[in-house]
Amino acid sequence: MNSLCVTGGRVLCPDGRVERADVLIDRDAGTIRAVGSPDEVADAAGAAAETLDAEGSLVIPGLVNAHTHVAMTLLRGYADDKPLDTWLREDIWPVEGAFSPDDVEAGAALGVVEMIRSGTTAFADMYFAMDRVADVVDRAGLRARLGHGVVTVGKDEEAAAADVAESLRVAAELDGAADGRIRTAFMPHSLTTVGEDHLRAGIADAREAGVPVHLHANETLDEVDPIVAEQGERPLAYADDLGALDDSTFLAHGVHVDDTEIDLLAESGAAVVHCPASNMKLASGMAPVQRLREAGVTVALGTDGAASNNDLDLFDEMRDAAMIGKLAAEDASAVPAEAVVEMATAAGADALGLPGGRIAEGAAADLAVVDLDAPHLTPVHDPVSHLAYAARGSDVRHTVCDGRVLMRDREVLPFDVETVRERAAAAAADAVARAEDGK
Amino acid sequence: MNSLCVTGGRVLCPDGRVERADVLIDRDAGTIRAVGSPDEVADAAGAAAETLDAEGSLVIPGLVNAHTHVAMTLLRGYADDKPLDTWLREDIWPVEGAFSPDDVEAGAALGVVEMIRSGTTAFADMYFAMDRVADVVDRAGLRARLGHGVVTVGKDEEAAAADVAESLRVAAELDGAADGRIRTAFMPHSLTTVGEDHLRAGIADAREAGVPVHLHANETLDEVDPIVAEQGERPLAYADDLGALDDSTFLAHGVHVDDTEIDLLAESGAAVVHCPASNMKLASGMAPVQRLREAGVTVALGTDGAASNNDLDLFDEMRDAAMIGKLAAEDASAVPAEAVVEMATAAGADALGLPGGRIAEGAAADLAVVDLDAPHLTPVHDPVSHLAYAARGSDVRHTVCDGRVLMRDREVLPFDVETVRERAAAAAADAVARAEDGK
Repeated sequence: MNSLCVTGGRVLCPDGRVERADVLIDRDAGTIRAVGSPDEVADAAGAAAETLDAEGSLVIPGLVNAHTHVAMTLLRGYADDKPLDTWLREDIWPVEGAFSPDDVEAGAALGVVEMIRSGTTAFADMYFAMDRVADVVDRAGLRARLGHGVVTVGKDEEAAAADVAESLRVAAELDGAADGRIRTAFMPHSLTTVGEDHLRAGIADAREAGVPVHLHANETLDEVDPIVAEQGERPLAYADDLGALDDSTFLAHGVHVDDTEIDLLAESGAAVVHCPASNMKLASGMAPVQRLREAGVTVALGTDGAASNNDLDLFDEMRDAAMIGKLAAEDASAVPAEAVVEMATAAGADALGLPGGRIAEGAAADLAVVDLDAPHLTPVHDPVSHLAYAARGSDVRHTVCDGRVLMRDREVLPFDVETVRERAAAAAADAVARAEDGK
Repeated sequence: MNSLCVTGGRVLCPDGRVERADVLIDRDAGTIRAVGSPDEVADAAGAAAETLDAEGSLVIPGLVNAHTHVAMTLLRGYADDKPLDTWLREDIWPVEGAFSPDDVEAGAALGVVEMIRSGTTAFADMYFAMDRVADVVDRAGLRARLGHGVVTVGKDEEAAAADVAESLRVAAELDGAADGRIRTAFMPHSLTTVGEDHLRAGIADAREAGVPVHLHANETLDEVDPIVAEQGERPLAYADDLGALDDSTFLAHGVHVDDTEIDLLAESGAAVVHCPASNMKLASGMAPVQRLREAGVTVALGTDGAASNNDLDLFDEMRDAAMIGKLAAEDASAVPAEAVVEMATAAGADALGLPGGRIAEGAAADLAVVDLDAPHLTPVHDPVSHLAYAARGSDVRHTVCDGRVLMRDREVLPFDVETVRERAAAAAADAVARAEDGK
């Protein structure tokens, strides 16, 4: 067997316990073959071809970033401290309009490097020039659920229909790419930025093709109130009428959801991707994460784009989710450490319908090794607490996806990081200059 | 001149602009001699004895952690996800009761190592065994405003009086220690944990000795409501009646303050130390930081103890403050990046009445050099945005306090980090075992 053995660490098990164990990976299959004592694992391995040292470290499932716009790394810190609507119209959309497919590729490469460095092994991406994003995911060795984001408002009928068609094309053509690590979804941007007829038709086509649906929903009151006024029902009731809610659907944000909508989510099996940093930075509000979880809704975590975060580090997101979850519930016991770790791992994989999220025999070999050997992680009363509250992306030593080592001893292997950074910085500067010339 | 030159970087100036400049430090005086072009600085330096490379980096004022209990690093991750009152009574106080002075020293050493590593050069500490904390601060080379925290509730009169006397003794005896880097304050724990007579007498004695006052105030509604019921006035009106508010006073938290209290703070010149992570983690609430700042109140930042955070990283605190500040104000433009950077630097130094907080000729030579050369900090549209939203403590390369290099190229110089970690881990384990035996 072509095997990889992660040795000497403690392992975060699916039931939340932490145990001293080695992890044996079948690299050809991309799966975990055994989790156990060094002797047990050595017996199963025969002669392991490669080892990854996890001494003093915690072996965790690779983190899942269930909502982002990865190429927006190019706009990290470009415009801060503005409300969503103004920020999009005045700052973000003009520069995005100037992005070429090369720019999107440069931004995506920067984003996947950042994700590999911080232990993320799978993500969902809604953007454009998705063929180029798929190329980057392929080279990176990550998993992803990709889709072209549809916006029809402000477009003529032909352009609107073309945008829907592009999203359906991307969903059909890229599905199964990168040796199956890429899956796809139909991704209307939101219930207010895509017209009702296009939503209805596109979702029906996606259902027929067996493709999941991903959209932004109930992010701000500015989005909820017009839907209630125009449709005479709550946004998720409208989404349900459009056929958008089923157990393959995952909705970004879900900040302003009422009890009837929480019930709809629980009944349909649709997942919510909580994006706490973005919701705070844009003052969108506080999602009722504790209530959603208590109702049985799958709640995953997403960074959203780097422009509203401003990084792609899921350790920040776990901490933010625990913090804001307590404030929203007015209860310090709400959204505890183990909940946010589960949201960033198993729930993320479940929401996206991707393998991973668990360190267990037969599961996908997607994992991160977190170095606990640092002053800010001393002492270790509870390693799960450290994941949620004290660790940072920079504490990740090794990242493995689909059985392949993507980072070893903090060195990212699929890319030359300096080249990626230089290309991204140049692309960002050029796009901003073009956009500002065009103003 | 015995000089140190920080070369090749960009400097965050007191007016918020970022300029390419070298920084020349007079090490004997512990002050900044010049900030300017390499030629200007070289002329002023003569032959610089030592240089610190800041190429690709941002030179910022050393960060100020204006409220912590530094030895509580020993309790990092010991008990999470509980409300303040239960958490203190059931978990924290029993273990703290088992801490020996050696334990406090071990925890303080771990905390100062963590602060040096994340660019903090000054802090305020409220704890016990403060002579031992002072020893650690002296060895670390940091600045601090130290005080013994007084609690009188649940104590007999003799023990209560002794606690007040200890706080006054610490304030008198330690002031000016560590070559003047240590200053002191009288530190009653809060308006509800110290009886009225002891507050009144202790504050009067502190005023007579010219010592500032530091206490927790308006942290939770559980603390505010009983004061309103018993005193018939808001907590800060009560504090003002006790003589606690003047321009040397700094209050931790200030979450639940009404407009009359904001006015009292502005009129008296008392500062508020905002502790966003602690306020979120304990579900205490959201401080009205934007309103406080608009009223002219000095608002500093603090991590609070590591048990309610769970680290001492002020980069996290800046990000948290910007995030929660927007939510509290329901305005994404509230508490912008430049505000939280000012809160963590100049406002922190001002709140504590300590030198530092500004990179300028004549200012104290307290600074941190932040490495911007990393994927998560690429591109650099705005370095101040990166400080607030994307940088982490681990991005700090060098830390300088009072003209002395405390960390060079991420190596902490005053301590052997491994020894500090081992001592702290052993002290934490032993104290927990003793406390749990005693239950």
